Amino acid sequence: MKHQEIIFTNSVAQAIDAVAQSINAPKTFVLVDANTAQLVLPLLQRESQVVAQAVVIEMQAGDINKNLDSLAMIWTRLCDNGATRKSLLINIGGGVVTDIGAFAGATFKRGIRFLNVPTTLLSAVDAAVGGKTGINFNGFKNEIGAFREADAVIISTSFFGTLPSMELLSGYAEMIKHGLISSEECYNRLLDYDISNADDADRLLVLLEESVNVKRRIVEEDPTEKGIRRALNLGHTVGHAFESLAMHRNSPIPHGYAVAWGLVVELVLSHLKLKFPSVELQRLASYIKDNYGVMAITCDDYPQLLELMHHDKKNESTEINFTLLDKVGSVHIDCTATESEISTALDIFRDLMGI
Amino acid sequence: MKHQEIIFTNSVAQAIDAVAQSINAPKTFVLVDANTAQLVLPLLQRESQVVAQAVVIEMQAGDINKNLDSLAMIWTRLCDNGATRKSLLINIGGGVVTDIGAFAGATFKRGIRFLNVPTTLLSAVDAAVGGKTGINFNGFKNEIGAFREADAVIISTSFFGTLPSMELLSGYAEMIKHGLISSEECYNRLLDYDISNADDADRLLVLLEESVNVKRRIVEEDPTEKGIRRALNLGHTVGHAFESLAMHRNSPIPHGYAVAWGLVVELVLSHLKLKFPSVELQRLASYIKDNYGVMAITCDDYPQLLELMHHDKKNESTEINFTLLDKVGSVHIDCTATESEISTALDIFRDLMGI
Repeated sequence: MKHQEIIFTNSVAQAIDAVAQSINAPKTFVLVDANTAQLVLPLLQRESQVVAQAVVIEMQAGDINKNLDSLAMIWTRLCDNGATRKSLLINIGGGVVTDIGAFAGATFKRGIRFLNVPTTLLSAVDAAVGGKTGINFNGFKNEIGAFREADAVIISTSFFGTLPSMELLSGYAEMIKHGLISSEECYNRLLDYDISNADDADRLLVLLEESVNVKRRIVEEDPTEKGIRRALNLGHTVGHAFESLAMHRNSPIPHGYAVAWGLVVELVLSHLKLKFPSVELQRLASYIKDNYGVMAITCDDYPQLLELMHHDKKNESTEINFTLLDKVGSVHIDCTATESEISTALDIFRDLMGI
Repeated sequence: MKHQEIIFTNSVAQAIDAVAQSINAPKTFVLVDANTAQLVLPLLQRESQVVAQAVVIEMQAGDINKNLDSLAMIWTRLCDNGATRKSLLINIGGGVVTDIGAFAGATFKRGIRFLNVPTTLLSAVDAAVGGKTGINFNGFKNEIGAFREADAVIISTSFFGTLPSMELLSGYAEMIKHGLISSEECYNRLLDYDISNADDADRLLVLLEESVNVKRRIVEEDPTEKGIRRALNLGHTVGHAFESLAMHRNSPIPHGYAVAWGLVVELVLSHLKLKFPSVELQRLASYIKDNYGVMAITCDDYPQLLELMHHDKKNESTEINFTLLDKVGSVHIDCTATESEISTALDIFRDLMGI
C-alpha cells in the first residue's frame, strides 16, 4: 500500500488548494452529504478556489444512505459530468461520506485520485485512515468495499465547534483506544483533556495527530489485517455486540459509546487473563462512567451478547477472539476467552458501572 | 501487485482441485453464465470434487449483462449463501464472467480469493490476465472496476473445440498483437499455425502460453498502465474506432476482428512514421484479409472514425496517441499522429484490403 499523505491543519481551504495543485487534475468533484452541504461547503467554497470551481455531488446524510443507490448516483454524476481517469474527487463529511466516496473513487474507471476531508471527530480519527472503503449491502455493514487509501487526508478540528457533544465523545472513545494500545504517556494526555468542552481546538488537533499516527503506524505494518492490525479491535468485540444489542432493542447507541463500554469489559478480561493492573481498570471505568454513562444490561442479556460475539466476522471459530493488554501500551492479539470468562467479565463490568 | 499464478493445462478439473486445496477455503462458489452452465459446468462437476460441492451462481450471458444488476445479484448470492472473507470464488466463462466475477471477488467484504477459468480464447489470452476487473455502466464499457489479479488463472484449450471459428479468430488477433510486440520468432510461429481449424489443442496451448507470458511480463512491469503497458494498445486505437463505428451502424463486429483490422492500419502508420518494413506490413495485411475478411469503410467514414479516436479514453489531448513499431518486436509508446496522417493510413489500409 502506498504511503498516504495526512495533513493536520486548521487551515483546511488552503490545504485543499495546495494538495489539488500538486495533483493538477483537469476536473475536480466534491462529494458532500446534506449536512456538510449546509454547514461546511459554503465556507470552503468561499475560501478554496478548487472547491469553488468543483462539480458538487450531494448525497443524503446518514448510515442508511451508505448504500448501492447512493454509490450508483455518485458514479453516474461523475460519468455524466465528464470525469476522466485524471479527475480528482474530494470527499467532505463524516464516515459515511468518506467511506462511500473513497469506494466510488477506488472503482470509477478502475480508480481515480481522491482526498478525504473528515468533518467529524470519529471520521477524522478512524474512517479516514486505513484504506477501508465501502458500503452497506443486503442488511450488512460494510459488506461491499475495497482496501484503498486516499491520495491525501486533510484533518482539522475546526469543524468540530458545531458538533454535538455525543459525536465528540463517540470519536474520543477511539482515541482512548489508541492511547491504550500505544503508551501510558499518550493515554494520560487523553484522560487529562476535557473533550466534553473541546474548546481548545489546537490542543485537540495535537492529540488527534498523535492518535491518528498510532493507527497509521499499525495499518502500515499490516495493511490487510492479517496480524497486528487486530490491535485496533480492542474494545470492539464486546462493543459491536453492545451496538447490535441496542439495535435489536430499537434504541441504537453511537458506535463510540459502544466501544467505550466495550473497552471496559475487555480490560476486565485483560485483568482476569493477563493481570492488567486493577487500578488502571478502575480509573478507565470511572472515566467512562462519568463521561459516557452506563450501558444498561442484566445477566438476562448475556446469552444474546455471547451469540452476537460469535457472529462477529472476526470470530469464525467456536472460541471468541479478543485483543487484550497486560498493561497500557502492551498488546496481545489473538487471545481467546470462554463464554464463562466473558460472563464473569460482564458481571464485573456491571459492578464497576454500578448497574 | 502480487504475482498471479497462471496454470497452463488441459486437465482443468485436476488443476482446480489442486489450487482449491492449497487455498483451503471453508466454502467455495462457482460463477458461470448460461452458456458455461450448459457446456462446461456439468463436465467439471463430474470431474472436480471442488466444483461438485460448490454453490453455483449463474448469470445471464453476453456483454449486455456485464452490468450493475448482475453484480448486485452475485454479491447477494454470495451474502445469502454465507460467504465469508475466507471463501473462494471460481469464475468459469468468457471475458464477461471473468471481468464481473473478479470485480465481485475484489469487492465482496473488501476482497475474497478468486480463480479465473477462461473458457474462450479471447478471455484466455486477454481478459484473465492483467488484473482489469469491472462492469459496464451508464452506457460506457468497463466504466466501473478495479485493478485486482486473481489468486490463480487456469488456462486450457480443451474447451475451445465447441467454439465458433469467429470466436477463435477474435482471440487469435490478440495473440498476433502479442507476437508483433514481442519478437519475430513468436510472431512467425503464430502466422504458421492454422487457427481456423485449431485441431491441435496441445500446440495451441503452447502458443497460448507464450502469448499470455508476453502480456504478463508487460503487466508486471507496469501494473497500473502508466508506461510500457500501453504497448498492449497496439491495434486498439483504430480497432476501438472500428468497433464503435460498426456499433453505430447496428452491425457490431467481434472485438478481435476490429483489433485485427486496427493492427493493419497501425502498422501502416508505423511504416509511414517509423519505417516499419513494407514487406512485413504486406504479409500481415494478406494474413488478416485471408482470415478475417475486410472492414468495409469509405473515405466518408473518416471524420467519424477520427472523432471516435479522439474520444477514446487513452486520448485526452488534441493529438491522437498510438503505440507503433519500427520493426516486429520493437515498440514505441506515446507516438502521436495528425488527422491527415491517419487519413493517409486509412487510404493505404483500403488499398491493402482491396476495398
